[in-house]
Amino acid sequence: MNPVFIPGPTNIPDAIRKACDIATLDHRSPAFARMFRPAVDGVRRVLNMSGGEVIILPSTGTGGWEAAISNTLSAGDTVLAARFGMFSHRWIDLCQRHGLNVQIIETPWGEGAPLEAIAAALRADKAGKIKAVLATHNETATGVKSDIAGIRRAMAGHGALLFVDGVSSIGSMPFDMSGWGVDIAVAGSQKGFMLPAGLAILGVSDKALAAMDSATLPRTFFDFRDMLKSYAAGGYPYTPAVGLISGLAASIQMLEDEGLEAVYARHARLATGVRHAVAAWGMRPFAARPELYSDTVTAVQVPAGCNGTDLVKLAADKYGVAFGVGLGEVAGTVFRIGHLGMLTDVMMLAGLATAEMCMADLGWPVRLGSGVAAAQEFYRGSVALRAAA
Amino acid sequence: MNPVFIPGPTNIPDAIRKACDIATLDHRSPAFARMFRPAVDGVRRVLNMSGGEVIILPSTGTGGWEAAISNTLSAGDTVLAARFGMFSHRWIDLCQRHGLNVQIIETPWGEGAPLEAIAAALRADKAGKIKAVLATHNETATGVKSDIAGIRRAMAGHGALLFVDGVSSIGSMPFDMSGWGVDIAVAGSQKGFMLPAGLAILGVSDKALAAMDSATLPRTFFDFRDMLKSYAAGGYPYTPAVGLISGLAASIQMLEDEGLEAVYARHARLATGVRHAVAAWGMRPFAARPELYSDTVTAVQVPAGCNGTDLVKLAADKYGVAFGVGLGEVAGTVFRIGHLGMLTDVMMLAGLATAEMCMADLGWPVRLGSGVAAAQEFYRGSVALRAAA
Amino acid sequence: MNPVFIPGPTNIPDAIRKACDIATLDHRSPAFARMFRPAVDGVRRVLNMSGGEVIILPSTGTGGWEAAISNTLSAGDTVLAARFGMFSHRWIDLCQRHGLNVQIIETPWGEGAPLEAIAAALRADKAGKIKAVLATHNETATGVKSDIAGIRRAMAGHGALLFVDGVSSIGSMPFDMSGWGVDIAVAGSQKGFMLPAGLAILGVSDKALAAMDSATLPRTFFDFRDMLKSYAAGGYPYTPAVGLISGLAASIQMLEDEGLEAVYARHARLATGVRHAVAAWGMRPFAARPELYSDTVTAVQVPAGCNGTDLVKLAADKYGVAFGVGLGEVAGTVFRIGHLGMLTDVMMLAGLATAEMCMADLGWPVRLGSGVAAAQEFYRGSVALRAAA
Amino acid sequence: MNPVFIPGPTNIPDAIRKACDIATLDHRSPAFARMFRPAVDGVRRVLNMSGGEVIILPSTGTGGWEAAISNTLSAGDTVLAARFGMFSHRWIDLCQRHGLNVQIIETPWGEGAPLEAIAAALRADKAGKIKAVLATHNETATGVKSDIAGIRRAMAGHGALLFVDGVSSIGSMPFDMSGWGVDIAVAGSQKGFMLPAGLAILGVSDKALAAMDSATLPRTFFDFRDMLKSYAAGGYPYTPAVGLISGLAASIQMLEDEGLEAVYARHARLATGVRHAVAAWGMRPFAARPELYSDTVTAVQVPAGCNGTDLVKLAADKYGVAFGVGLGEVAGTVFRIGHLGMLTDVMMLAGLATAEMCMADLGWPVRLGSGVAAAQEFYRGSVALRAAA
Repeated sequence: MNPVFIPGPTNIPDAIRKACDIATLDHRSPAFARMFRPAVDGVRRVLNMSGGEVIILPSTGTGGWEAAISNTLSAGDTVLAARFGMFSHRWIDLCQRHGLNVQIIETPWGEGAPLEAIAAALRADKAGKIKAVLATHNETATGVKSDIAGIRRAMAGHGALLFVDGVSSIGSMPFDMSGWGVDIAVAGSQKGFMLPAGLAILGVSDKALAAMDSATLPRTFFDFRDMLKSYAAGGYPYTPAVGLISGLAASIQMLEDEGLEAVYARHARLATGVRHAVAAWGMRPFAARPELYSDTVTAVQVPAGCNGTDLVKLAADKYGVAFGVGLGEVAGTVFRIGHLGMLTDVMMLAGLATAEMCMADLGWPVRLGSGVAAAQEFYRGSVALRAAA
Repeated sequence: MNPVFIPGPTNIPDAIRKACDIATLDHRSPAFARMFRPAVDGVRRVLNMSGGEVIILPSTGTGGWEAAISNTLSAGDTVLAARFGMFSHRWIDLCQRHGLNVQIIETPWGEGAPLEAIAAALRADKAGKIKAVLATHNETATGVKSDIAGIRRAMAGHGALLFVDGVSSIGSMPFDMSGWGVDIAVAGSQKGFMLPAGLAILGVSDKALAAMDSATLPRTFFDFRDMLKSYAAGGYPYTPAVGLISGLAASIQMLEDEGLEAVYARHARLATGVRHAVAAWGMRPFAARPELYSDTVTAVQVPAGCNGTDLVKLAADKYGVAFGVGLGEVAGTVFRIGHLGMLTDVMMLAGLATAEMCMADLGWPVRLGSGVAAAQEFYRGSVALRAAA
Repeated sequence: MNPVFIPGPTNIPDAIRKACDIATLDHRSPAFARMFRPAVDGVRRVLNMSGGEVIILPSTGTGGWEAAISNTLSAGDTVLAARFGMFSHRWIDLCQRHGLNVQIIETPWGEGAPLEAIAAALRADKAGKIKAVLATHNETATGVKSDIAGIRRAMAGHGALLFVDGVSSIGSMPFDMSGWGVDIAVAGSQKGFMLPAGLAILGVSDKALAAMDSATLPRTFFDFRDMLKSYAAGGYPYTPAVGLISGLAASIQMLEDEGLEAVYARHARLATGVRHAVAAWGMRPFAARPELYSDTVTAVQVPAGCNGTDLVKLAADKYGVAFGVGLGEVAGTVFRIGHLGMLTDVMMLAGLATAEMCMADLGWPVRLGSGVAAAQEFYRGSVALRAAA
Repeated sequence: MNPVFIPGPTNIPDAIRKACDIATLDHRSPAFARMFRPAVDGVRRVLNMSGGEVIILPSTGTGGWEAAISNTLSAGDTVLAARFGMFSHRWIDLCQRHGLNVQIIETPWGEGAPLEAIAAALRADKAGKIKAVLATHNETATGVKSDIAGIRRAMAGHGALLFVDGVSSIGSMPFDMSGWGVDIAVAGSQKGFMLPAGLAILGVSDKALAAMDSATLPRTFFDFRDMLKSYAAGGYPYTPAVGLISGLAASIQMLEDEGLEAVYARHARLATGVRHAVAAWGMRPFAARPELYSDTVTAVQVPAGCNGTDLVKLAADKYGVAFGVGLGEVAGTVFRIGHLGMLTDVMMLAGLATAEMCMADLGWPVRLGSGVAAAQEFYRGSVALRAAA
């Protein structure tokens, strides 16, 4: 009944719920192809792809990571990755479990991808052993966004592929696959696309596709080759998640009706308001510097002696509101406010007001209404007059 | 996307939307009867009826008023009614248009039904010309609740029927048809029952039913006799609104799962929080005295020089949030906050925060966050720990 | 799970269910006006109106009949009506209950409106006492359609209004309000418009509107004057059935996407297939002559010694399929197959196959598959290749 | 609008659509755990498991196959499998792509799993190199069911695991994981469970679980270990498909409300009726012998000179009805009628009637109504009186 304020899955708009909730359709029929094509084309526009292919798997972001590496790499291959949060950690772990040699750049949590260190590692790789660089565009655990264009610049002169986890950024924050030179971008249905979980959505560059045939990591469910062969015939190698694909087409329609730039601006506004509230509470985002602040999730550093997980638990139990706990090494020291997907200023204020009540309940040194007022002041000054809906 | 804060129609819970949204069912089949019976029985419990009959018309509250009089009265009959708001006015107007002689007790808006004046009028009616007393339980225009039990006491010794408009109270505020001696109670689907508009729901006492045969006001669509004859056979005299009846059964299930007393207590809490906010803004409810304060709607008196309608318009245009304007003689001098139906503390705070932003936008002398803080303080202190849902 | 084959309410397409199932919207907001206007304009096109006004009441067809007379007539006025089925009978009964003097032309059931007798009655009315002629376009009880254009011709030279019950024809069979000179056309949401019950939809000519002010039958809920005044401001005099109005806009979109002519042709095809099956069973429609055959419902005359109601009961109990029983004087001697609204050839064959199983179960002299085969032969020969949906 | 008659995805009942279509829920909250547990427990009952664990992956049947082998086997391991249709073929292909050594028993299509040959192969495997036997319970391509209990008997004395593809049988045909000694059973959401595609549902025996730690095939998305660790905490290692899990709980409720035995009996009845129709058309199922006939899908052998794919294409294009084409070596020589999931006799007759129209359109030597009549005769004689729904 209350909206959720977790960094995904996000609140699902009614129109998308209805687009997902459809009667059974023969997925081998032209009707399916007519539904699938606009979804694929729309993903291209959201990712800003030129060339390459879109792959949509009935899976999740984790499956998307696995598909990215298993279709392009072979056991023993080296990849380069920075670890600065739970999600960058998990992708590294996945690579290791699939027999890759991961050259890890340990980076303090709260920082983003370390461009210098990446550049240095690649310069040092005279033999060209590094086949791919893995980057987490938006580290959902710490609320940190990384500079993907900068990573590509840091890779200048090296032939490695660039794989980007955009699960919690794509559709909510600007993404420029073509301009940034991304080889595989991984998104999930349940974040910026405002759908239920159940789709891994990948943009794959021509260069990454060229690696398919030599890659020997075993895969069937995730095999791009089967996918592309079936897509060419308007279908799938196995039963697709038809409802979610219908919903994806609706999602893209909704994003483009609002305008992608307007969607990104709305997320920036929502996030800025949240950060005003955080400051009014006398706290700060966990992200090390303003230029790292994510526009989709804020990990709020809680005052000394306070425990962020207590707040999250109380919000759920007492007020029926979901926030995100701190994960891994920031467990307890942060709580996370998701501000992505279908959210309005008004909903956001409800979330902030709830967080404040929890703080007061827990005896944290925060004045009721203070964060709300700061966000109100920002929102009322920055909102555009709504067009007639 | 944002909840509405109008005094009805109210926000519809998902479970009720789903119960309304059903495939076509033969309304002459036993399946319909199986759905209809629990709805009828549930209404009896919500109204606290003993004896009498429940009548459910595919209509609205206005239709319910018309049905109440046309099934019990004849042209030229006298009824007694106090006028103290737009909805009491409209019922009076309806009676006049149907040829009744309405003895009107003009009462200042902001007041409730005047018990003394009613008692006096009945005492003066030695000839027993007054056939019915009309009472508006909750005057939606002014946020005033009246003392129905008191009206019945004021009627002591007089044989008139007591007809009560409970459209914006029933299902949200305590109602005791049997204990209060109400002869016809009129409810609508779109308020406390949390359904779409489309049903007039009436409780009719045995005494009121006894007037059916002598009443000569013309009616067919609203005729209780056709209804009761058809109900006895498990059906309707014409096509019923099957989906809404399915939804009504679900609504009653939901109200009773929460517990009617808990539902009423929740509304009282929501309303109290709103009134704390209003006080913090330096304003007051339009209702004349605290014992008249409605638990489903607050008409907020705006400061001198301010116009409540401006706030309502701005909230809709700029923030996508619906409040209610002042109607009739309080147009401009109040705006109305609906706090009935499916609402949580958290949603309520979003509404209050929005009202504050509008006040600031309009230059009203209100500090951002002030009302929110007052409501937060009240809500966090009074909420029961949510049971595991 | 199985479609219904009753002559309304009809099966509701998914797209219309979704359009009806919407979150609460402020009905006093411009958003409502934006939804209402296309619905009204669409009704004009379906009715083929020029001039006049569309009135949409949160009610049913019966309410539409009541609204038609109460807004245009006064107690004691004379109306002319033929009685040849249950629905023409009910409208007459309604008029009598509202104090009208109904000049009834008793006509054998199975016949349509008797043009000669109507002409004669009007010729005889030298004094012009007949204020309105009531006509049932499609008598749902007998499966008979009447010639409305013929009635208007029969009225030549007389000033009476022409009121038409098109509840079970409009949206499924051609209707030409302007060409036929209809003054009030009454439709319901739950037939050709494929919506749930809950809306009475009326087209009202300028001539009928002109009668509003002198008409003295009491009405408030149904009062056209309040409606038109509110419509002019984009609203309603009371709470409208917002979801159904949203659904009506979707219904008209769907009808016009298919094309009204194509919709009518589909109904004619469906009906013809049913009649082929009836003939193969050795039975005949109850309608007296082929030119009276309705394209929305067939009342099948059952063989001597058989009881149509038994079939309807068995179909519901054993096979979960709804047909219509015979009503009034044809109870038992017919059963009714509805073939209107969202139905395909394929669904129709399921209905016919079920009827056959019931006949066999009841020992009626019918060969299994015979009616199905006749309908199959007709359908497969007449279906247009489906356009890519 | 018309039901589908493909062998999955199946028609989704309204109640299941509604259970899937839910607002976003925090999947790390107790609310999710409360939804997940009944789904898991219900799957245990449907599979008739004792011990072991249920694994539910946001994936499809193909993913379920991959999960089965990657969690229990290592590259170079030998598995034994019979190939007698497209789906047994695909599982074999998957194993090979993951580096397994598949000992294939080539078996004529139309036959089931060859018990003698399996027994012989295992007897010959003195060294115990065969780690697992793969069996396709219901070969969806040929409409053949295999004797899983018999396979287990054929395995007597050999230590191999028994993995069963039950994607198109589980929930529609009796399955006895415990009694038959199945080690991994693979189901999908979109067949007998009547859900959209998007879940692979596995029952895993304790013996199979014991193989987890030594298995070295790489996996992360499909890793049982992560799943089981997270399940123990009421959660998932990544974002689950919450709506489908909610739907799965509803599906099991629906299956158990009808009664699993009744569900199986209904499928047997539906299938028998279809086979009566096939016989009346002068055709026969592709399955070699009656004891192999599947109760969920019939592959109909078309007459010489006819092409089954033409029928499927025509049914889709002309009548809007989906059947299944022949796959692989039976392309053209069969068409497939799915008769599983939410289907009634009445819907089945619509499918048979459509197939007949297509046959007539294509000039096949079939009399219209003949198959329908045969099925009608069977259905009407075998249906139980429907309990009051």
